[in-house]
Amino acid sequence: MNHAGSKQPTGEKLAGEEIAKHNSRESCWVIIHGKAYDVTEFLPEHPGGPRIILKYAGKDATEEYEPIHPPDTLDKFLDKSKHLGEVNMETVEKEEKEEDPEEADRQERIRTMPILEQCYNLMDFEAVARRVMKKTAWAYYSSGADDEITMRENHSAFHKIWFRPRILQNVENIDLSTTMLGTKVSIPFYVTATALGKLGNPEGEIVLTRGARKHNVIQMIPTLASCSFDEIVDAREGNQVQWLQLYVNKNRDITKRIVEHAEKRGCKGLFITVDAPQLGRREKDMRSKFSDVGSNVQSSGGDDVDRSQGAARAISSFIDPALQWTDIPWFLSITKMPIILKGVQRVEDVVRAIAAGVHGVVLSNHGGRQLDFARSGVEVLAEVMPELRRLGLENRIEIFVDGGIRRATDIIKALCLGATGVGIGRPFLYAMSAYGLPGVDRAMQLLKDEMEMNMRLIGCSSVDQLGPEFLDTRALSMHVNGTPSDTLSLNVYDALRGPHSAAWAKAKL
Amino acid sequence: MNHAGSKQPTGEKLAGEEIAKHNSRESCWVIIHGKAYDVTEFLPEHPGGPRIILKYAGKDATEEYEPIHPPDTLDKFLDKSKHLGEVNMETVEKEEKEEDPEEADRQERIRTMPILEQCYNLMDFEAVARRVMKKTAWAYYSSGADDEITMRENHSAFHKIWFRPRILQNVENIDLSTTMLGTKVSIPFYVTATALGKLGNPEGEIVLTRGARKHNVIQMIPTLASCSFDEIVDAREGNQVQWLQLYVNKNRDITKRIVEHAEKRGCKGLFITVDAPQLGRREKDMRSKFSDVGSNVQSSGGDDVDRSQGAARAISSFIDPALQWTDIPWFLSITKMPIILKGVQRVEDVVRAIAAGVHGVVLSNHGGRQLDFARSGVEVLAEVMPELRRLGLENRIEIFVDGGIRRATDIIKALCLGATGVGIGRPFLYAMSAYGLPGVDRAMQLLKDEMEMNMRLIGCSSVDQLGPEFLDTRALSMHVNGTPSDTLSLNVYDALRGPHSAAWAKAKL
Amino acid sequence: MNHAGSKQPTGEKLAGEEIAKHNSRESCWVIIHGKAYDVTEFLPEHPGGPRIILKYAGKDATEEYEPIHPPDTLDKFLDKSKHLGEVNMETVEKEEKEEDPEEADRQERIRTMPILEQCYNLMDFEAVARRVMKKTAWAYYSSGADDEITMRENHSAFHKIWFRPRILQNVENIDLSTTMLGTKVSIPFYVTATALGKLGNPEGEIVLTRGARKHNVIQMIPTLASCSFDEIVDAREGNQVQWLQLYVNKNRDITKRIVEHAEKRGCKGLFITVDAPQLGRREKDMRSKFSDVGSNVQSSGGDDVDRSQGAARAISSFIDPALQWTDIPWFLSITKMPIILKGVQRVEDVVRAIAAGVHGVVLSNHGGRQLDFARSGVEVLAEVMPELRRLGLENRIEIFVDGGIRRATDIIKALCLGATGVGIGRPFLYAMSAYGLPGVDRAMQLLKDEMEMNMRLIGCSSVDQLGPEFLDTRALSMHVNGTPSDTLSLNVYDALRGPHSAAWAKAKL
Amino acid sequence: MNHAGSKQPTGEKLAGEEIAKHNSRESCWVIIHGKAYDVTEFLPEHPGGPRIILKYAGKDATEEYEPIHPPDTLDKFLDKSKHLGEVNMETVEKEEKEEDPEEADRQERIRTMPILEQCYNLMDFEAVARRVMKKTAWAYYSSGADDEITMRENHSAFHKIWFRPRILQNVENIDLSTTMLGTKVSIPFYVTATALGKLGNPEGEIVLTRGARKHNVIQMIPTLASCSFDEIVDAREGNQVQWLQLYVNKNRDITKRIVEHAEKRGCKGLFITVDAPQLGRREKDMRSKFSDVGSNVQSSGGDDVDRSQGAARAISSFIDPALQWTDIPWFLSITKMPIILKGVQRVEDVVRAIAAGVHGVVLSNHGGRQLDFARSGVEVLAEVMPELRRLGLENRIEIFVDGGIRRATDIIKALCLGATGVGIGRPFLYAMSAYGLPGVDRAMQLLKDEMEMNMRLIGCSSVDQLGPEFLDTRALSMHVNGTPSDTLSLNVYDALRGPHSAAWAKAKL
Repeated sequence: MNHAGSKQPTGEKLAGEEIAKHNSRESCWVIIHGKAYDVTEFLPEHPGGPRIILKYAGKDATEEYEPIHPPDTLDKFLDKSKHLGEVNMETVEKEEKEEDPEEADRQERIRTMPILEQCYNLMDFEAVARRVMKKTAWAYYSSGADDEITMRENHSAFHKIWFRPRILQNVENIDLSTTMLGTKVSIPFYVTATALGKLGNPEGEIVLTRGARKHNVIQMIPTLASCSFDEIVDAREGNQVQWLQLYVNKNRDITKRIVEHAEKRGCKGLFITVDAPQLGRREKDMRSKFSDVGSNVQSSGGDDVDRSQGAARAISSFIDPALQWTDIPWFLSITKMPIILKGVQRVEDVVRAIAAGVHGVVLSNHGGRQLDFARSGVEVLAEVMPELRRLGLENRIEIFVDGGIRRATDIIKALCLGATGVGIGRPFLYAMSAYGLPGVDRAMQLLKDEMEMNMRLIGCSSVDQLGPEFLDTRALSMHVNGTPSDTLSLNVYDALRGPHSAAWAKAKL
Repeated sequence: MNHAGSKQPTGEKLAGEEIAKHNSRESCWVIIHGKAYDVTEFLPEHPGGPRIILKYAGKDATEEYEPIHPPDTLDKFLDKSKHLGEVNMETVEKEEKEEDPEEADRQERIRTMPILEQCYNLMDFEAVARRVMKKTAWAYYSSGADDEITMRENHSAFHKIWFRPRILQNVENIDLSTTMLGTKVSIPFYVTATALGKLGNPEGEIVLTRGARKHNVIQMIPTLASCSFDEIVDAREGNQVQWLQLYVNKNRDITKRIVEHAEKRGCKGLFITVDAPQLGRREKDMRSKFSDVGSNVQSSGGDDVDRSQGAARAISSFIDPALQWTDIPWFLSITKMPIILKGVQRVEDVVRAIAAGVHGVVLSNHGGRQLDFARSGVEVLAEVMPELRRLGLENRIEIFVDGGIRRATDIIKALCLGATGVGIGRPFLYAMSAYGLPGVDRAMQLLKDEMEMNMRLIGCSSVDQLGPEFLDTRALSMHVNGTPSDTLSLNVYDALRGPHSAAWAKAKL
Repeated sequence: MNHAGSKQPTGEKLAGEEIAKHNSRESCWVIIHGKAYDVTEFLPEHPGGPRIILKYAGKDATEEYEPIHPPDTLDKFLDKSKHLGEVNMETVEKEEKEEDPEEADRQERIRTMPILEQCYNLMDFEAVARRVMKKTAWAYYSSGADDEITMRENHSAFHKIWFRPRILQNVENIDLSTTMLGTKVSIPFYVTATALGKLGNPEGEIVLTRGARKHNVIQMIPTLASCSFDEIVDAREGNQVQWLQLYVNKNRDITKRIVEHAEKRGCKGLFITVDAPQLGRREKDMRSKFSDVGSNVQSSGGDDVDRSQGAARAISSFIDPALQWTDIPWFLSITKMPIILKGVQRVEDVVRAIAAGVHGVVLSNHGGRQLDFARSGVEVLAEVMPELRRLGLENRIEIFVDGGIRRATDIIKALCLGATGVGIGRPFLYAMSAYGLPGVDRAMQLLKDEMEMNMRLIGCSSVDQLGPEFLDTRALSMHVNGTPSDTLSLNVYDALRGPHSAAWAKAKL
Repeated sequence: MNHAGSKQPTGEKLAGEEIAKHNSRESCWVIIHGKAYDVTEFLPEHPGGPRIILKYAGKDATEEYEPIHPPDTLDKFLDKSKHLGEVNMETVEKEEKEEDPEEADRQERIRTMPILEQCYNLMDFEAVARRVMKKTAWAYYSSGADDEITMRENHSAFHKIWFRPRILQNVENIDLSTTMLGTKVSIPFYVTATALGKLGNPEGEIVLTRGARKHNVIQMIPTLASCSFDEIVDAREGNQVQWLQLYVNKNRDITKRIVEHAEKRGCKGLFITVDAPQLGRREKDMRSKFSDVGSNVQSSGGDDVDRSQGAARAISSFIDPALQWTDIPWFLSITKMPIILKGVQRVEDVVRAIAAGVHGVVLSNHGGRQLDFARSGVEVLAEVMPELRRLGLENRIEIFVDGGIRRATDIIKALCLGATGVGIGRPFLYAMSAYGLPGVDRAMQLLKDEMEMNMRLIGCSSVDQLGPEFLDTRALSMHVNGTPSDTLSLNVYDALRGPHSAAWAKAKL
């Protein structure tokens, strides 16, 4: 389709001054990677809202655009007639960036950051990332729904599970390997799908691809990746295995195309997200003015997008909130990949999933980013397995868990309860954001080291030996909350102190 | 009744100097809204005590009087013979107000306050209100009984209730509407009755009337409003619905008059407060020296009021502490409005209320302002519904809950447990105090947005689908309280720290 | 018995210079209330150890001596031959007291202390007392055993008990009165025995006598009072009732004499302390260097006292650690006063007490000053009453509770559970220490005001209507203790913040 | 075995300059206690890794070497041909030590430290030690596995156990003595095995030997001691009893030699550590750069040691991770000492231990240094004893507990639950590190004093009277963890404050 009014020079590069004139809602051009685009008609369809585009009307938008759009976005979603051609970048006026003291502080923190060897566990990467990431990127990765109760509960739940180790077993050789959906992996975790990897690292999700390859674990490719699907698949090496995470588009043709493409490119599992008919409100993210996030992968646009509700709701416009159990047979019909429902949160739905013929479920609450006060995946797992055993269904599907896994002990606990494997997301994002691939590599190695040791200490030499008898989970479902604090009493209480000499007292030791 | 000694000039305005002479307990005149009143004989009857009036003896008391007395107070409670007539305000000496550094700070905080769009949830309005409200007004709104344990427990209780969401439901279209006492509302909350609205906003309760109208929810008119009952009713628009909250007067004639008037003016429900035979002691309020609050709506005065006990006890003088179950038939006889008991706190009394023939109950502890260690309404609800179901009584009355509702998840939890709707009070007061009607509007809109999303995430497209199977309430009644802290051990424990470089350590990152 | 070597001048006053010579362990004289005493031989017998006496050897020890010895101590425990007679105080060298900056601070705090009317509850007196009392006195009153877990649990336990109030009862007139051991009292608490009242107020325990009289409650006279027993009895007015608390002396003749004397002087109850075969180690007290406390009431001295263990162990030297159940009949035989065992801590011992024929028990852990991790009295009460009812013994004795009572709700909870009344100790000591008799008066009045209101709010007009159906005690015995804190996770968590403008952020609002 | 290339001067001392030349991986000499050693070939075998040795290549390594190697290490593990002979120390260049401000601060803290008498309980020694120990030594002693949850839970678990004391027992004379594995001891604790005593005190473990002797308790000799086994045995006096803690070497000949030697030297019990097939990762320790710890007692070296994993894994290289139940008969065959399994953590393994014919078990998680989220020994004890009683096995073995014992109440709780005795480790290390032998002496005396008093207060005069009826352990296994904090609500809550005058408010009282 050709638009008569559009200026499409051939051969000759566009001048910055020309582009700068198209700086309004009426005529809006932007420069991306040295090329100009007429996005006037696209403005109302932009999933992230028109405002963020208009901010760059007539200017170079590359820096803002880059981390949150896969490279094939413009080709896919903007009619060729709007591709105005190359720009003579020397004629584009450089914007004087304001000196941002916060950014200067951040650069100083990066300059003096701890070396990678000082990270001894997965929380350590988060501690570093929090201080070296851009504030908006950190807010996007680290935020959760509402009061972030579920987000924090996810890891906290593991702290209600205690071990009953056995002794005097031959634990000289520890085998951490297991099989997930037919793929042998070196350790029972996979890299779960997380959005917008370029916010943390300019290379985006392919850093995770390389880390997963090195440690022989599976990567789940996110629908909302910063890299394009094909870029991520292309980064695969050898017999490396990837899965696809899928947000189901209202337009089933698009969905079908994506699924078929993934299968063709060799994906070995299709994880359909079922806990996000609408993407969650994340107030920390909203507060950080992260108003411009978006991903165009499947966007079909639409005037009814309520942009006032923030980025997450904008992104979610293409997701089908009418997806139902009755859609499952269709998915089974269009692919031979095993199908796994990601985001199951009650035992009844696990049973229903088995009846529907899918091959697995992920007990997950979307990293605490969707419904606050959803229970942790591991708590749901503890509810699910006894019921499945009672019904004789425990071997009918593979059950995965994600959310809050930070230690090898967390992995072992999930496996003892009956999980095939666990998904880990944010920790690798943080490792990647702080230290790139070496960070991801070390994070995975730390988990392996921890797990080998902990397997020894629990008295098991291979994953198949793990079982519920190694755990004490009695308190797992007790969501207690202390009586509100007795302020007056606490204030008058004169707490006990240890010994101190006059000199120490003075020095406040 | 005419008092010979009273000076009642006709035609000519009173001079400030004349009024200034009547500045003692023996002869006490005050100016309110440009008119003078002889309150000498009224002094001992003033529900707020004589002291606060004497502070303004011979002076203009308007500013102090305004927020805490409905406009018809003087007509209703002061004999016409004491209305001395208009004052020539130019002859009234202006009081040099002391420069109050605290008030100056507050004005500065108001000048620089966050914009409304920065409020993303109901707690945010409270955070702003706390800093921009007058200290005494804040203390009055925010205070609770004794140690404020119940006040805080009210919201905290919701944090012991967790969700069991279901997946793969068609949640494209969400219908939040429901019916309360025959009225269709857009979302299952109502604006519950709260006293003294003008402390937070010069327009008082009618701001809430307008907000409720906009969002098609019901407003419950408080007995102790700053606006008069008729003002609040007059602010109603279209087919907007209001209910009346009633403190029962010892003088049943007054009570009857109020009820009949309310019915005539179109009120659609009579909520009789049964949890306040005496108004609570609220120490935070007392400490803030808020000694002058009072409301005259029904005051019949009385020498036996113990004014030393603070405002709340003074206000409560007209309330009948002898109100009993045997009074209920009389109420049923004087009105056709449905009658709801507000402040029920145990299942036995719900059953008794059904037997008494009332149409509903509000499970409530008066916002934690009456009996400390009363349980939260939502906990009582979880006790009530299974018992009603056991007795086959679950559909005999409508059950409402109030106290601590701040998130749409709280509303959904109450509805899952069986409530028809929930009352929300303080949050709207805070929104109104900080931002006026736009604040109330945004607060209600935020609840709608939250609820629509959360309904999707729990897998329900309409309110009638909600039920107890969506909740895990096992810990709700566990009022645990940790062992007192192990001070010495905590003090010697050298907590783990994340990685830090020398530079970071120096900068205390 | 006369000691030849002692200098006993007759008629003529002793000179300070003479006394000053006897400043060693070999010859140790001290001045008390203007009289000199030769305590050389008494040194090793002093329950508080010789060191504290030697500090004043040859000097005036009155100020140190006064608060911790009843006035009849010297007559009772020092042979008349050691009473050296009056001293010409003008010849005694005044000690230049070092300027103590801490004491100066304290005096300044006293000068600017809050007025009595600012105390709205019992905790408030403690908050003031903590800042105006001498550090050692505060440490003595406020300290508990070991880690002070039980001391704090005592009040904390009440926070695990919640109300189930009833509505629509006639609560116009509230009758707080009840009967304890045959005495009608105005409100169901008594002033329990606490040691060394003069540490807090120069008048000592008789301040409490007067307060109890004013509010028509019973005072229990402590064995280790600063005032003598007779002084306290003499302070009684009208038909005021007192009880006696008794530490049983190894020498039963002394014990018998005390009991018979108390009965003769009109005491109406004998409370035998059974939870203190040895007085507790209280480290806060020890740390404050309060090495000189002691009370001589019954001291028979003894070389085997291990003085290195601090004051409490020294004081306890006269207490009989061999007191047994078989001693009870003897007590019943020597007095007609009802006998109550104070310090019972398990249901088995309550049953045994009934079998032994005593008239009551106090469920108490000695204010948390003896065995740490003893349960609170109110928790034991909740264990005791159902078992007594099961055995049909619930009316056989009167059951009292003490420990941690600070609010009228605490009293009501204990009464609902079956207590006849409750003992309150420290709060009145603090009120007395901070504000003298007016403080005690106000503290008692506050409890009455609170209780009247709370009785109304719970729906009971008299004490006999209270019962366990008004309580939810399910969590009372759950001594949970959260999993140790997840330090690394807590440190990396970036907590949600409310709205703030740039200006507010700068001002750290 | 003689190495031709080695320089072995006879008669004449080596010069510093000569040694200084051998400062590389190719030729590495070090000086220890005035003698030179060629460790070039030993480098790859060093359990602590070669790096730490290379740091001292060509230099005097004595100060670093001393605390972490028993004196017989070089003789045992370095071929005589590598012993180069005495060094003329005057020719060795003294290294200018950098001024370390942290060390200077520490020395100042030592100079002004509290006197021993200010330590009133076991926590107090830890508080002092934390401030006077070298940072690396403190980190080694005080660290635990992973998040140190188990380490802290160990003491915290005791806080979930409450007493049910009995009254009116004859508790005049308290007998704390008991019998462990046939040895009568004065109080039911023993000094359990802890590694590297010289880190805290230059004399090392023999300080503990002397303390144990003084208080007539048993010392368990650690495998990884700083002193040699024989030094510790030689420090024994009179009929003092010692036990041996054993890490089982992969080379059973070495193990057998050690066991036989211990028996010959009079050890009365063999405690085989079964909870450490691999020594734990302790991040606090790793973070403190304590990269040079190691103990050579049994090291057989090995190229496969993964030195990158820190000290603990290096040390553990000789421990046999293949030790199994089937090895137990062999142990029973090589010694007549009673055999006790140290580190049992579930009831099933206690039953199995009985079946295997051993004489005892220690319920222990290695002081929280191995598997995080292992339950506390005392919790396991509460699980074990009822089951053993059910099986009629309760008298078949002696059961010990260690971990977290800090108070005599902790000891009493363990004994009530059925333990024969308890092991105490770190507290004595801290007492020794802060105050040497007098510290250990006082720590033990404090426990005796506390226990005597607490026995009285619980109503028992000897250890055999203790039983489960004295405890309330209902909450022991409830590993609850509160709902994550409600940050926004907590932030807006305006906490109650006590009374304050304007002056006090200003002074922030």
